[in-house]
Amino acid sequence: MSNPFFKNHGPILISEILKSLKIKDNNFRQDRQIKDIKDLHAASESDITFFHLKKYKEVAKNTKASFCITTDSLKNDLPKNCTPLAVDNVLVSLSNLTAKFYPDAINDDFDNTTIDITKTEFKNKIKHGKNVLLGDNVLIGLNCLIGHNTIIEKNVSIGDNCSIGSNTIIRNTIINNNVKILDNCVIGKHGFGFFPINKKNLRYPHIGSVIIEENCEIGCGSTIDRGSMSNTIIGKNTYLDNQIHIAHNVKIGENSIIAGQVGIAGSSILGNNVKIGGQAGISGHLKIGNNVEIGGGSGVIKDVPDNSKVMGYPAKNIRDFLRENK
Amino acid sequence: MSNPFFKNHGPILISEILKSLKIKDNNFRQDRQIKDIKDLHAASESDITFFHLKKYKEVAKNTKASFCITTDSLKNDLPKNCTPLAVDNVLVSLSNLTAKFYPDAINDDFDNTTIDITKTEFKNKIKHGKNVLLGDNVLIGLNCLIGHNTIIEKNVSIGDNCSIGSNTIIRNTIINNNVKILDNCVIGKHGFGFFPINKKNLRYPHIGSVIIEENCEIGCGSTIDRGSMSNTIIGKNTYLDNQIHIAHNVKIGENSIIAGQVGIAGSSILGNNVKIGGQAGISGHLKIGNNVEIGGGSGVIKDVPDNSKVMGYPAKNIRDFLRENK
Amino acid sequence: MSNPFFKNHGPILISEILKSLKIKDNNFRQDRQIKDIKDLHAASESDITFFHLKKYKEVAKNTKASFCITTDSLKNDLPKNCTPLAVDNVLVSLSNLTAKFYPDAINDDFDNTTIDITKTEFKNKIKHGKNVLLGDNVLIGLNCLIGHNTIIEKNVSIGDNCSIGSNTIIRNTIINNNVKILDNCVIGKHGFGFFPINKKNLRYPHIGSVIIEENCEIGCGSTIDRGSMSNTIIGKNTYLDNQIHIAHNVKIGENSIIAGQVGIAGSSILGNNVKIGGQAGISGHLKIGNNVEIGGGSGVIKDVPDNSKVMGYPAKNIRDFLRENK
Repeated sequence: MSNPFFKNHGPILISEILKSLKIKDNNFRQDRQIKDIKDLHAASESDITFFHLKKYKEVAKNTKASFCITTDSLKNDLPKNCTPLAVDNVLVSLSNLTAKFYPDAINDDFDNTTIDITKTEFKNKIKHGKNVLLGDNVLIGLNCLIGHNTIIEKNVSIGDNCSIGSNTIIRNTIINNNVKILDNCVIGKHGFGFFPINKKNLRYPHIGSVIIEENCEIGCGSTIDRGSMSNTIIGKNTYLDNQIHIAHNVKIGENSIIAGQVGIAGSSILGNNVKIGGQAGISGHLKIGNNVEIGGGSGVIKDVPDNSKVMGYPAKNIRDFLRENK
Repeated sequence: MSNPFFKNHGPILISEILKSLKIKDNNFRQDRQIKDIKDLHAASESDITFFHLKKYKEVAKNTKASFCITTDSLKNDLPKNCTPLAVDNVLVSLSNLTAKFYPDAINDDFDNTTIDITKTEFKNKIKHGKNVLLGDNVLIGLNCLIGHNTIIEKNVSIGDNCSIGSNTIIRNTIINNNVKILDNCVIGKHGFGFFPINKKNLRYPHIGSVIIEENCEIGCGSTIDRGSMSNTIIGKNTYLDNQIHIAHNVKIGENSIIAGQVGIAGSSILGNNVKIGGQAGISGHLKIGNNVEIGGGSGVIKDVPDNSKVMGYPAKNIRDFLRENK
Repeated sequence: MSNPFFKNHGPILISEILKSLKIKDNNFRQDRQIKDIKDLHAASESDITFFHLKKYKEVAKNTKASFCITTDSLKNDLPKNCTPLAVDNVLVSLSNLTAKFYPDAINDDFDNTTIDITKTEFKNKIKHGKNVLLGDNVLIGLNCLIGHNTIIEKNVSIGDNCSIGSNTIIRNTIINNNVKILDNCVIGKHGFGFFPINKKNLRYPHIGSVIIEENCEIGCGSTIDRGSMSNTIIGKNTYLDNQIHIAHNVKIGENSIIAGQVGIAGSSILGNNVKIGGQAGISGHLKIGNNVEIGGGSGVIKDVPDNSKVMGYPAKNIRDFLRENK
């Protein structure tokens, strides 16, 4: 799938890519064209990908990409079809290259393409409050409501029967049918992803979107960041309470219930039917199974298998936690 | 007291109520009229109530309601004046019946009755910022201030000498004299109450209000949800710091101090002179006594008696916590 | 340095100060003029200061102030040049006296001096969204952006190349060059500082500012309170994620990284190169050294020396925490 919101400035010649990665190697056909940059799973034969953590070894083995930014220590886990391009810091190289394909994906300044909804085709099609602004490339379905002072910035698609509250800001987001988003939310901004560099950090591009599937509800004051290389996804019929923070690349399954002030760090993946109590936190890059229950206030710092109930900081089996803390 | 904000579509014939609960029973006078639906404590002889948790047994014994939605296992705790109506799931039945009495209490879409304050009688009576909107059934006392972009949606009563900040949204709320509410708050939205049903959850009606008593202060970015069957109450001279979440039906006493990022889950009741440190969380349906101190970061998962100092997760006697963690 | 934002109504005669503190003492030259009220470190010979906690003993010993509000038990730690004025409650006395010097610093009602940016000199100088308001005494540098519905209240100085998001509110703040502040933030409001008094608490004046040094980024929905007697400072190139709360008088060093939903309580001081994981909390009046790493979810309740890695609640050495919780 091509990127729905950010313009791909590719294809880029492999010779240019090698130059930007500071790799000198004459064994390649220098005129080969690379169409896009994608994660290990999504990349096809015409793309370049990246592989930076041992834990993604199994996915790496099956990638279809022809080239992969990686390290000397990881390169042997790649399949024969994929030529490793070893660098010192995979993420910095990835960031620089992504910025070549998608130069518009670094900047998250306010959207100055917006105009008042009363000057658009949606004026009479949906119920809207006062001072509603719409940016470029906004689609809104049938029977929707948008509250006062809400800003639908560029690159937003809203399905049918959706209700957006007031003072909410949305960009780079696909919202499916029957979704409710309450007041004071910020959805679709870039994540907290950058490379720490003394004096001036380096932001990396966020070319992903937020996808909110049908029948979801998002509580007041919540923030959902868009993905960097993949998307941030809230599965069907999942409800989020107030003041929740969902970081970039997080994927939450269907029919899940997440109570107030929960935070989920970047790239964690949650299954279906997950219940999370208030103020719990989940570290980044974790896998939480289906039918998992996480007690309120828990701090989850490792994967949780299907059908588990955990609680505590760090979170453990809930029976153990309660017995030890009688 | 009749509901101040939601129109009661009752009385409803008991025969209709039985039909909606799918109870077939010919022992009642089918033409009996039921005026309202209320909790065990508030219900009078002409009302129907509900009883779903053993912990409310003592209140159930003294209810004045003539009918009560409950279960087979709880029904024997009701007094003689109250006829039990046993169902499989009390809360789902309650929800359906409440929606019959109060059909307007499910929907929390943005208030499209609002108009700019400069077009209302309050134009010259209070100091107000730019772009202030007022909904139906809004009362504002003397000597008040309302900041820019703030939306006082329908069903709000504000006392004298109150100061509301900017970008704040309020509905279904009674604010007493000398209250300050700072910027970016959302007060009076429905709570996180619904029945999890695969593919599409069922919201239950929130017919309660938020009541903020005199001399309170509510910090920036806080959310206070209105009650479902009862009210959410902030007692006199209680101060809340920034980014606090108070869930539906919570009752906080007088002279209390609640530091930043605290969360209090649904239906918990706190006494007077309670002090809560930053980021502490209190689970739902708990009773916290008078003069209680809860250390910052604590997770309170059981009742706390009067005059206790607790800390930890789960919270315990603060001396024990500090000694064990030296 | 004189206060940049609040008008000093001093000098005040020492005889008047003694009267307001209810101290009867004829040993002073009653016509001595006191210019300002400052903390122990910042006060000069013509100022009055305060000393209320034993932990500030070393700073007290070197104060240049001529007078100091303190207690009988602390007064002997002051140097000879500084006359102690012993009172029962230092902070209440401080509060009352500060209100005499700075009567405008108690009130944080919405700023009604604001006008639409299109009616100001900045109309064509910066890129701005719809409905942007600017208060009195606002300076904005070159090449800046300000998003929709954002309110720059009185007493704000913004450097060059800054990008402010939408729906954000700022007052009493100095923002240096190349700073990004995202959406829905509230920066520069008074802190959660007051004296608990039954029936009606007493607010104390906040005469400090927020200072955000160059190259910083502040995430969506964050709140940063201004200082009471000193300033709240975010050091150069420090990045804050979403939904962070920074209380009054906190000082954060340079090149630091603070993840989502972190809270830092009043008057804590952090060094440079500090990394804090999501949802961690830091109690008030602590000193966190340089190069410190604090794990996500931690609750820090005592000082942390340079180069330490801590985690847990209460936070301890991270290796001990992980070993004990295997």
